[in-house]
Amino acid sequence: MSGVRVIDVNHGVFEINDEIAETVRDYNKQHNNFMINLMASPGAGKTTFLLKTVEALKDSVKIGIMEADIDATVDAEKMKAAGVSSIQIHTGGECAMDAEMTLQALNEFDTKDIDLLFLENVGNLVCPAETDTGADKKVVLLSVPEGDDKPLKYPLMFEVADLIVVTKIDTLGYFDFDKEAFVRNIRARNKKAEVLFLSAKTGEGFDAWLEILKKWL
Amino acid sequence: MSGVRVIDVNHGVFEINDEIAETVRDYNKQHNNFMINLMASPGAGKTTFLLKTVEALKDSVKIGIMEADIDATVDAEKMKAAGVSSIQIHTGGECAMDAEMTLQALNEFDTKDIDLLFLENVGNLVCPAETDTGADKKVVLLSVPEGDDKPLKYPLMFEVADLIVVTKIDTLGYFDFDKEAFVRNIRARNKKAEVLFLSAKTGEGFDAWLEILKKWL
Repeated sequence: MSGVRVIDVNHGVFEINDEIAETVRDYNKQHNNFMINLMASPGAGKTTFLLKTVEALKDSVKIGIMEADIDATVDAEKMKAAGVSSIQIHTGGECAMDAEMTLQALNEFDTKDIDLLFLENVGNLVCPAETDTGADKKVVLLSVPEGDDKPLKYPLMFEVADLIVVTKIDTLGYFDFDKEAFVRNIRARNKKAEVLFLSAKTGEGFDAWLEILKKWL
Repeated sequence: MSGVRVIDVNHGVFEINDEIAETVRDYNKQHNNFMINLMASPGAGKTTFLLKTVEALKDSVKIGIMEADIDATVDAEKMKAAGVSSIQIHTGGECAMDAEMTLQALNEFDTKDIDLLFLENVGNLVCPAETDTGADKKVVLLSVPEGDDKPLKYPLMFEVADLIVVTKIDTLGYFDFDKEAFVRNIRARNKKAEVLFLSAKTGEGFDAWLEILKKWL
């Protein structure tokens, strides 16, 4: 329904982006970095999920974290406090990281001692789904309070995901969230993605995530 | 940090958009429609908030609702079931409504018997903040589970808002949300916006919202 002008321009940019995404993948391969693009709405629990992951793995895996935000440095500060190598990226108003931004960040970030690299993308379920950053895997987080209908409303995000993690399952008794309906809504678009349910608060379901991560590395 | 190409193109599009937004405002003025652009993350409670508003006002105010989504028709169906005049807009992948889309929707929607028009924008805190739809007021919803730090991470959204509504305050005991810190985070960028706290579940705080709405109409 929007002006065709906008869409044409995006196509051009997307093609350039896809080439740069391949450069990112080559860079990571050469440096033995396994990179995960972590996407979610604001407040879905990306930062807490990462902090718990770092806590569980930091003695066995060298982890680096790139925090992308429109503004602020709160997340990178939390990561630094947790003792993990991290940088903050400001996207200058852009609603998602693209491959060029990712490549710039990789070049400025000392990744030579890192095995596993997380890119915490800008918080939303739209733009990050459209833009290949060059990551090896795409993980989408959705929290119970957001509702089980979100795969219907943001289909591309759930279509491109390799793994979908439902967070804050300790609040299942409080919110009206139907786990089976949620999986059904995903399967309409994505037959392959694994779906996990966990709580960073109670730790329930966290082992299954760590198992998948080990399988990937 | 992104390619300069993208930013230049956006400027051009934004200028065209601002002209069309004025046309939207003229259209609404001529037709006596007061239009509110409702913005929030996915799952913040926009649809429930609207349903409660409709329930409270439908005997005294003629309400129309435009539901904008990437895909799906679940929200417009809920509105129809509530007996309110509504249409579903699919943005074709765009992460926000722009003024041209809004004008098209207005032209297709029978607004002659409507006093108050809500545009439920695509769910995210980034793109809708950047794009003037031509609405008379901008209302931003944020739910308690999303966290009190969101004005730091999505500053433009909280800067452009005329009213900021914190939803799901019945869950304040469950989540770590500091109301004073939240207001402080807003005031760093926006001195004027009113800030309300409410729960559509218990009804607490809802009267204050209806008072503001009456003042606007």
